[in-house]
Amino acid sequence: MLSIDEARGRILARLAPLPAEIVALGESWGRVCARPLAARLHNPPADISAMDGYAVRGADTAPAPGRETILRLVGESPAGHPFAGRVGPGECVRLFTGSVMPDGSDCVLIQENVERRGDAVVVREPVAAGRHIRRRGQDFAIGDEVVPAGRRIGARDIGVAAAANHGWVQVHRRPRVALLATGDELALPGDPIPPGGVVNSNTPMLAALIRAAGAEPMVLPLVRDDASAIAAATDGLAGPGGADLLLTIGGASVGDYDLVQSALAARGLEVDFWKIAMRPGKPLMHGRMVRNGAALPVLGLPGNPVSALVCALLFLLPAIRTLSGDRSGGLDYEEAVLGRDLAANDQRADHLRASLVRGEDGRCVVEPFDRQDSGMLRRLAACEALILRAPFAPAATAGDIVRILCLDRFGI
Amino acid sequence: MLSIDEARGRILARLAPLPAEIVALGESWGRVCARPLAARLHNPPADISAMDGYAVRGADTAPAPGRETILRLVGESPAGHPFAGRVGPGECVRLFTGSVMPDGSDCVLIQENVERRGDAVVVREPVAAGRHIRRRGQDFAIGDEVVPAGRRIGARDIGVAAAANHGWVQVHRRPRVALLATGDELALPGDPIPPGGVVNSNTPMLAALIRAAGAEPMVLPLVRDDASAIAAATDGLAGPGGADLLLTIGGASVGDYDLVQSALAARGLEVDFWKIAMRPGKPLMHGRMVRNGAALPVLGLPGNPVSALVCALLFLLPAIRTLSGDRSGGLDYEEAVLGRDLAANDQRADHLRASLVRGEDGRCVVEPFDRQDSGMLRRLAACEALILRAPFAPAATAGDIVRILCLDRFGI
Repeated sequence: MLSIDEARGRILARLAPLPAEIVALGESWGRVCARPLAARLHNPPADISAMDGYAVRGADTAPAPGRETILRLVGESPAGHPFAGRVGPGECVRLFTGSVMPDGSDCVLIQENVERRGDAVVVREPVAAGRHIRRRGQDFAIGDEVVPAGRRIGARDIGVAAAANHGWVQVHRRPRVALLATGDELALPGDPIPPGGVVNSNTPMLAALIRAAGAEPMVLPLVRDDASAIAAATDGLAGPGGADLLLTIGGASVGDYDLVQSALAARGLEVDFWKIAMRPGKPLMHGRMVRNGAALPVLGLPGNPVSALVCALLFLLPAIRTLSGDRSGGLDYEEAVLGRDLAANDQRADHLRASLVRGEDGRCVVEPFDRQDSGMLRRLAACEALILRAPFAPAATAGDIVRILCLDRFGI
Repeated sequence: MLSIDEARGRILARLAPLPAEIVALGESWGRVCARPLAARLHNPPADISAMDGYAVRGADTAPAPGRETILRLVGESPAGHPFAGRVGPGECVRLFTGSVMPDGSDCVLIQENVERRGDAVVVREPVAAGRHIRRRGQDFAIGDEVVPAGRRIGARDIGVAAAANHGWVQVHRRPRVALLATGDELALPGDPIPPGGVVNSNTPMLAALIRAAGAEPMVLPLVRDDASAIAAATDGLAGPGGADLLLTIGGASVGDYDLVQSALAARGLEVDFWKIAMRPGKPLMHGRMVRNGAALPVLGLPGNPVSALVCALLFLLPAIRTLSGDRSGGLDYEEAVLGRDLAANDQRADHLRASLVRGEDGRCVVEPFDRQDSGMLRRLAACEALILRAPFAPAATAGDIVRILCLDRFGI
């Protein structure tokens, strides 16, 4: 059976970032930048004051023996109203944080260091040329890259893009992920539940994960355990206007065979692999459906909700990131301190549901739950982290450092 | 001047969670649950098989001396198709993970431990009564709380709510935050820039932060530095259909007075405080406008984008959480290892822009940037964490534990 890393590598190797589209800057939050943004102006656009005070010539503020140093106020320049004239010797102009430095001045005398007597400004502390000025282009200059391609755009990126005078951004198109849940036993919340049936929790849960990852879920109607119905549900998904990825859920052990695989084989499914050495979630299928020259990647998740969520986190989320052009890299594994002893692991990589406490020393302590039954969805919802246990990992002791995934990082 | 904690306490003390509205479960991701969801059914709904195999009576699987233990296959029960009959002595029923346990059976003989010969099932390993069964209600029982009030709903909560048969959720209404940026110097990205002007980066940046926090930005047109225009821009915001919070940006030092404060005073603004002992961002105003009996909370941010963002993180974000009914508590401060020495701090709390590296020992190392100029928006966008320095904090040494805020946690 494949390892998790091998399996993920094979899934990602076949995916490429989707083409770009243009969105207004204000709508770009959470999208992935497709083309670097270069500054269209200097920031600051001119030398500006970093403080409230007076634009002066530094040399004029030097103390004179036996008398006060007094400058003559010749104007005021609030932000957005540059002083039209020039600061001459012995003169000053009132200004504020962000005001453009007037011609002739070379520093800012801060307001705490003067005494005002009408138009006379008495200097209480001298100031050196160059002080309290933010230089033109100090933050960025025309042409500087302010937002790199491949970056998931956050609020600060929007701020710096605006300051660089961009009102539009090229972002990668959101991946469309079709969800196909199969099973005679499934009912939608609130709908009549068949005998022996369960409410379908996977589809809404995974649709939310897909949204949290920045993609667009396309939720197909539930399909019974019927090969031709399953096959028909996928018609129109490959190719333009369809989906970028088909996610099937369940159907891996219906009767004595894999119903989804055999159903989709009739529609051109080429299976790459269908088993991974992991727990929860051994039956994970990867392949693609090739129809009319278009290839639709297919991921098949197990029907057990705990397995489905863990597999989605490990394989679907990176797939969405790759399709989105997100270059932030792989999964955001972290290291934490193990809160209690763990037995040695068997041949399958394990993902233990655990609570997480942030310690005072800057480390997190993870405590695996007593019961790890993959049927327990409420425990999955209650856990804060998954502890990753490699195949054949030896027994671990409280205090050891282990690898974890913090679930709240992913909006799941 | 007020401390940060005092100021935040005074802001939050006046805010209460907004009323509830109903959304479809699939639309509830990222919303805050307003009423606990209690399970409407047991999960599992019946005793079900945890494995693929055969429903048997455990006693029938005991090895018999000198001969094979053989059970007779009397039916098959895929998930969703409960076996209608009863498993009698010496009989078994084929079933799969999730199948309802048939009457008469008391455990599951897993398929790896049998040999099939037509309808004869040869037992290779005995199994004890009770094995491989997930008990009815083992995950949750009718009436159990599956999603608590005050929880920001993630994908897993949606899964467990669906499993508990909820198709609808009561969530707190999204807070509407009106943004009012003032300044003669401001232009929108792409619009003509006035002499000495700058592009308004605060409004799109803060609108994105507001969205990231789960609230709804209401972006008011830019207003010039004119008291009556500023006052008029706020008309209709207080009361029904208006905003839950007014955020003003800039205008704190226009000429020699605070233009926004004096403009809004004419519309009933009662100022609570307007200065905080912090850096960046000393001039932070808090108050409320009382008009026609309705009170509109007002937060006034400094116009400097770096200060505005830090203040929004420290004060606006918790305000939005409180209005949203989010009980996850205050800001998510973390602890990290300081990467290099820091000088003693002065009387104002400081927030140093820093890079962050995750270490192998489970701790993060933060390295403050050399330049902390609050005019540098690009550096703010590039930083990964803020290091919090308390007022009068003594000098710190590389290796010390310091408090940080990880900025990527907040979608900013």
